[in-house]
Amino acid sequence: MTEELLYLDHAAATPLDERVLRVMQPYFSELFFNPSSPYAPALTVRHDYDAAKQAIAQTIGAKGDELVMTAGATESINLAFSSIGGHVVTANIEHHAVLAAAKRSDHTIIACDEKGVVTADAVRVAIRPDTRLVSIALANNELGTVQPLRDIAVVINDEREKRRAAGNTMPIYLHSDASQGAGQLDIHVSRLGVDLLTLNAGKVYGPKQVGLLWASNNVALNPQIVGGGQERGLRSGTENVAGVVGFAKAMELADAHRKYEADRLRNLRDGLQNKLVTAFDDAIISGSQKRRLPSHLHISFPGLDAERLVFALEMRGVMVATGSACAANKGTRSHVLTAINLPPEVADGSLRLTLGHLSTDKTIAKAGDIIIEEITRERKRMAA
Amino acid sequence: MTEELLYLDHAAATPLDERVLRVMQPYFSELFFNPSSPYAPALTVRHDYDAAKQAIAQTIGAKGDELVMTAGATESINLAFSSIGGHVVTANIEHHAVLAAAKRSDHTIIACDEKGVVTADAVRVAIRPDTRLVSIALANNELGTVQPLRDIAVVINDEREKRRAAGNTMPIYLHSDASQGAGQLDIHVSRLGVDLLTLNAGKVYGPKQVGLLWASNNVALNPQIVGGGQERGLRSGTENVAGVVGFAKAMELADAHRKYEADRLRNLRDGLQNKLVTAFDDAIISGSQKRRLPSHLHISFPGLDAERLVFALEMRGVMVATGSACAANKGTRSHVLTAINLPPEVADGSLRLTLGHLSTDKTIAKAGDIIIEEITRERKRMAA
Repeated sequence: MTEELLYLDHAAATPLDERVLRVMQPYFSELFFNPSSPYAPALTVRHDYDAAKQAIAQTIGAKGDELVMTAGATESINLAFSSIGGHVVTANIEHHAVLAAAKRSDHTIIACDEKGVVTADAVRVAIRPDTRLVSIALANNELGTVQPLRDIAVVINDEREKRRAAGNTMPIYLHSDASQGAGQLDIHVSRLGVDLLTLNAGKVYGPKQVGLLWASNNVALNPQIVGGGQERGLRSGTENVAGVVGFAKAMELADAHRKYEADRLRNLRDGLQNKLVTAFDDAIISGSQKRRLPSHLHISFPGLDAERLVFALEMRGVMVATGSACAANKGTRSHVLTAINLPPEVADGSLRLTLGHLSTDKTIAKAGDIIIEEITRERKRMAA
Repeated sequence: MTEELLYLDHAAATPLDERVLRVMQPYFSELFFNPSSPYAPALTVRHDYDAAKQAIAQTIGAKGDELVMTAGATESINLAFSSIGGHVVTANIEHHAVLAAAKRSDHTIIACDEKGVVTADAVRVAIRPDTRLVSIALANNELGTVQPLRDIAVVINDEREKRRAAGNTMPIYLHSDASQGAGQLDIHVSRLGVDLLTLNAGKVYGPKQVGLLWASNNVALNPQIVGGGQERGLRSGTENVAGVVGFAKAMELADAHRKYEADRLRNLRDGLQNKLVTAFDDAIISGSQKRRLPSHLHISFPGLDAERLVFALEMRGVMVATGSACAANKGTRSHVLTAINLPPEVADGSLRLTLGHLSTDKTIAKAGDIIIEEITRERKRMAA
């Protein structure tokens, strides 16, 4: 039913993969038991839950009992920040969840460069002797810019060495929200060099309202939500068995198809970009074109009203975003576009086109044609 | 598939009603959009989400925008406590989530009586001039004891009057976790006299990992989870559309069948109780038999090992609990049974039998027979 959709907003929401839904179904019916109950069918549910966590953990090179399952990336981020606190460092293009959580602590917000890259040098300058947490997303959700996380991890390690030498016992950790890009990039935690990692099932064709926080076992987490002691006491509440089993399937599929899917999306995206840039020679591509998620194309048509364009496109069945879909963004200019110093008249004419499973040669060609037609129509209207 | 189950643990988990699952399905497939996205299909999803909240609110006599949707009762309880803080009063038979949340504030834990009732007088005595929150569950999840919430609300109102007269501007609020009993009791907030109410979809044949906190609009909530600003900024994270739509259907069904279902369960429960008490004249029924959820039967067989019995029953297809299914309870004696001063040798021989949709004349008769047979066998074994 969704196959023919001209949907170019995969960064906002992904359709649940039908293979994921299939593995979830039993937990909506005959396997409805509370995993903490003592009888065998409930123990089966407990086993399936733990096995799903283990399977998810394997896709990031971790262990199942190092994961805290949450209701999504926002909760995971909040758990990371509220656990570690102290002075935190993050960047001005981070997701609202990171920025809002950071503002609850003593914080330094560093500026990305004009490509949306948070450089390791900028992180190095911002770190203070009392910094406890650095949080940089693996890839920006609006621009798709992939951050030099490995280099930032080196900076954190250097700081650790420096502290050790100085007898400063204050720990410092690197957290990354890898929700965007988990289906396209390597998210193995030791290769990334992170101490904490956030993932969101809803961004990888898994169920919504399911996420996780991974923390290496040298990080002491403190629960925000206390009670029955689930998730090793770090996040109480009856476990979301269907959701976590679905998340595991989604991660398995993401893992199996990562390389193929990244190449496929890159080809489609590059084709779409070429087509649009050829049609409109004043179009501006934002973000780093070298370090960019294969799924993402952020393109601005100076002078155009992107909100009008979104409605015109929608009338023709093409679904795109003007910016991040976060509720807080409504009616305000994207903080990411401000961060990269995009002039207002360019920012206001921006589309975020994000490709994914629903993108095919056919849908992308058709969507591209319609976008060109509607921009042409709009520009004629404005010139008249 | 679940119809013939001899499942007597509805307080731990309820099977998802198939009518609920049916209304959720579209949001797992063609209506997968992020409700914050700007195009029409996403606006439809936003509309459906808001309409579901409104429908839920109506079943408790409230407005949709007074609800904060959460990942379950535990999160709702934590949000209530962390928002209000100050000195809090709760009771020694409350759920672990309430007790754990209370312990993060200055707190007074009052003792219930030997029937598991938290009296209004006990609350009155515990309230201090600086008490900000009183939290008493509508019904206890182990015993089924229904609390005199209306009387407790009168105490709170008296305290408000007293403060007003004394020029004390400190507010005081009454919170109730009504997760247990929402399908059987009146949960209209103004009739209950509460200022905050927690509900859990997973206890009323709705989806797991979905809950809500209602707060009257004179209560100022503070978010635990910050970010995109969803739920009026009180609980950020992409909305759980499928879950909330399912919750609305579950509440609609609970509301429509409340009276009938309560009567039906009471008859079944009373029949089962009579049968067991007739078979074992030393059996002890705990909790108030006057003020008790129709679904609940807490029964002890002195000297018996309830854990062994649970396994023996399970081998014959009968699923029951020895106590609350909360993970924290594992391997320890129920704090509720300690609170009502049940002697250890009685407590350790206790079953919690909780009836619900899967309980019919046939399943309850059969389960009752098997329980009698297994207890008889176990007692013979012990006597040998």
